[in-house]
Amino acid sequence: MTDDEAPGMAVRGANAGEMLRLVATGAAESRADLARLSGLSPSTVSQRVETLIGRGLLREVGAGKSRGGRRPRQLEVPVDGVVIGAVDLGAHHARIGTLDLAGRVVQSRSLEVRVEDGPESVLGTLLTEVTELMRGASGPGAVLRGIGVGIPGPVQHGTGRIVSPSRMPGWNGFDVVGFFAGRTDVPVVVDNDANLMALGEHRWQHPELDHAVYVKAGTGIGAGVISAGRLHRGGQGSAGDISHCQVFTADPAPLCSCGNTGCLEAVASGAALVSALRERGLPVQSLPDVMRLIDDGDRHATALARNAGRSIGEILAVVVNFFNPQAVAIGGLLADCEPLLASMRSVLYERCLPLATQTLLIERLSTGADVGILGAGQLVIDRVADPL
Amino acid sequence: MTDDEAPGMAVRGANAGEMLRLVATGAAESRADLARLSGLSPSTVSQRVETLIGRGLLREVGAGKSRGGRRPRQLEVPVDGVVIGAVDLGAHHARIGTLDLAGRVVQSRSLEVRVEDGPESVLGTLLTEVTELMRGASGPGAVLRGIGVGIPGPVQHGTGRIVSPSRMPGWNGFDVVGFFAGRTDVPVVVDNDANLMALGEHRWQHPELDHAVYVKAGTGIGAGVISAGRLHRGGQGSAGDISHCQVFTADPAPLCSCGNTGCLEAVASGAALVSALRERGLPVQSLPDVMRLIDDGDRHATALARNAGRSIGEILAVVVNFFNPQAVAIGGLLADCEPLLASMRSVLYERCLPLATQTLLIERLSTGADVGILGAGQLVIDRVADPL
Repeated sequence: MTDDEAPGMAVRGANAGEMLRLVATGAAESRADLARLSGLSPSTVSQRVETLIGRGLLREVGAGKSRGGRRPRQLEVPVDGVVIGAVDLGAHHARIGTLDLAGRVVQSRSLEVRVEDGPESVLGTLLTEVTELMRGASGPGAVLRGIGVGIPGPVQHGTGRIVSPSRMPGWNGFDVVGFFAGRTDVPVVVDNDANLMALGEHRWQHPELDHAVYVKAGTGIGAGVISAGRLHRGGQGSAGDISHCQVFTADPAPLCSCGNTGCLEAVASGAALVSALRERGLPVQSLPDVMRLIDDGDRHATALARNAGRSIGEILAVVVNFFNPQAVAIGGLLADCEPLLASMRSVLYERCLPLATQTLLIERLSTGADVGILGAGQLVIDRVADPL
Repeated sequence: MTDDEAPGMAVRGANAGEMLRLVATGAAESRADLARLSGLSPSTVSQRVETLIGRGLLREVGAGKSRGGRRPRQLEVPVDGVVIGAVDLGAHHARIGTLDLAGRVVQSRSLEVRVEDGPESVLGTLLTEVTELMRGASGPGAVLRGIGVGIPGPVQHGTGRIVSPSRMPGWNGFDVVGFFAGRTDVPVVVDNDANLMALGEHRWQHPELDHAVYVKAGTGIGAGVISAGRLHRGGQGSAGDISHCQVFTADPAPLCSCGNTGCLEAVASGAALVSALRERGLPVQSLPDVMRLIDDGDRHATALARNAGRSIGEILAVVVNFFNPQAVAIGGLLADCEPLLASMRSVLYERCLPLATQTLLIERLSTGADVGILGAGQLVIDRVADPL
């Protein structure tokens, strides 16, 4: 066995983007630190560090602390100026931001969008806005390295195309990467919004977890999956898309936008809660209105939220039995809805294998509104550090 | 980027057990072949080959074919004599076998067992039988390197303990590794029977697949999961255990051995089919009796099989949406039941995301009765090649 095989770290530490994060966060100051933390051999680490220095992604800043012997040359990630742009698109809002090469958010803000205006209009606006944000924030000598984009629907990995999204009329088959390629000359990386959420939360809050599931419960419902420390996209890039899984419902099961009945999304998404309450004549326009009704103790809204939590719990129970993650974390607006979380937990403990829930963490996401932006930053850093 | 990061191969080729398989199957004849196929650097491959030669797991056999330049030294796996013992325990039968260091079956046979006789009696008998098989088959100079054991219930990875198994009275908490450790001095590796099935089928039939799910549908129902080319065990080792996932049933939902109602196992396992037909007064004792009734066109048995297929399909639909595997393969006795497979496929295509089933393979297992033995052999080879 060579030192490439240090237990548990060989896979996780093998990626150049993650090496940047180790240096950027101060976890590693030298090549020796990187070898120790990544489990890679010193020669592999040295080769990789030279490549990253050559690309301007790492630099040497004199001698570091000695641990006996020659003082190692200290490494740092150049973070002068703004270098990464990020867009996290939702159904009604988008979050845009800029990040430094360490993957930290420099600036971010939200803006209202209407996905039903179609991809050309929405993405055009977002590109303009994020370009403006970068222009305002850039320091002297800053170079834009890439843009990361999150889409609230299925994205085919490899092509960057949107495939059969719900509630996104006019977006099916749209080539997001191609759209940006004609308008900017830096790499553009596109992924599902739940994958970005998983990446942002895992890399910054739980990098020690090997297997975790991050559920985004907002207007829609999706999940991002971490397997062996890495984002698991599956064969086509659709892994984590649990929105059309069938749940137990009262008859008649509600019709989903996908044409099936009884889908999780048609029962437990924010969009479904808004529709159901409007059908009862309650004055709700959006998910925040629903949340206010629940906070005010409206029993119909609360009953719907509990039912949504049970449905999410049913599907997650299959996921937990099948995948045996160490943690399930819930983000999105509905993660703040206590009755929903309580019902979800109850079903998980009722329907999962004892071995699978013995040490399972079930928690709220720790990162706030910028989690998708952070994930987009990681995607871009991975791309520019490890170009394929 | 260094040559440690050849796309798609770095993870898969990083394991010493897999390097042995590449040499054993003739896919690799030299260090250079191994470097090319594994994506590892020549220096890493050389170090690893030396270690494997030192352990007697590889040997040099003169010069190989030249591809220009110096002729590389040819490698082979010594397969003289029988070196690995394997036990694949089922509810009513066990398969025992011996394998060579290349992971190929030398001898195998089935024997009847009754798991309800308890672990000491059953495992004691199996150890005697497999020892006898090895003694009969060993060539001169053969050395036993390890024993792999598959158990038809949840096995906690790391401890090798059985945790809350169904239909295995007296086995809960039993320390299988400890039992063998007192009776043999070679390494003993224990895993769930579905994991062994997945490993045997994946390594020998589909090593090119990154993400696949192997379902064992026999007396019980379980699955083994391959993620990024490797067996995914999850946080506690229970990944793939879908037997207690809740499915849609007519009221009243059948009571499962776990104390819940409506579990997949209580509806769709071979044991459930036998019980349901006996309750109708039909003369069935075991799953083969049920299969004969279906072959003879008994409509009650066939209806139950179709219903079982729908239930398996429901759970696999969640699995496919969540995990987006490239293939789902079905093994176990029920994989030969056409009406069950047809209903299962129907539900999968009805309830999965289009992107997830676009190119999904849904097929029967290709390997026969020895698949669990082959998987056990891989586990042992991985352990002796990478002892951690």
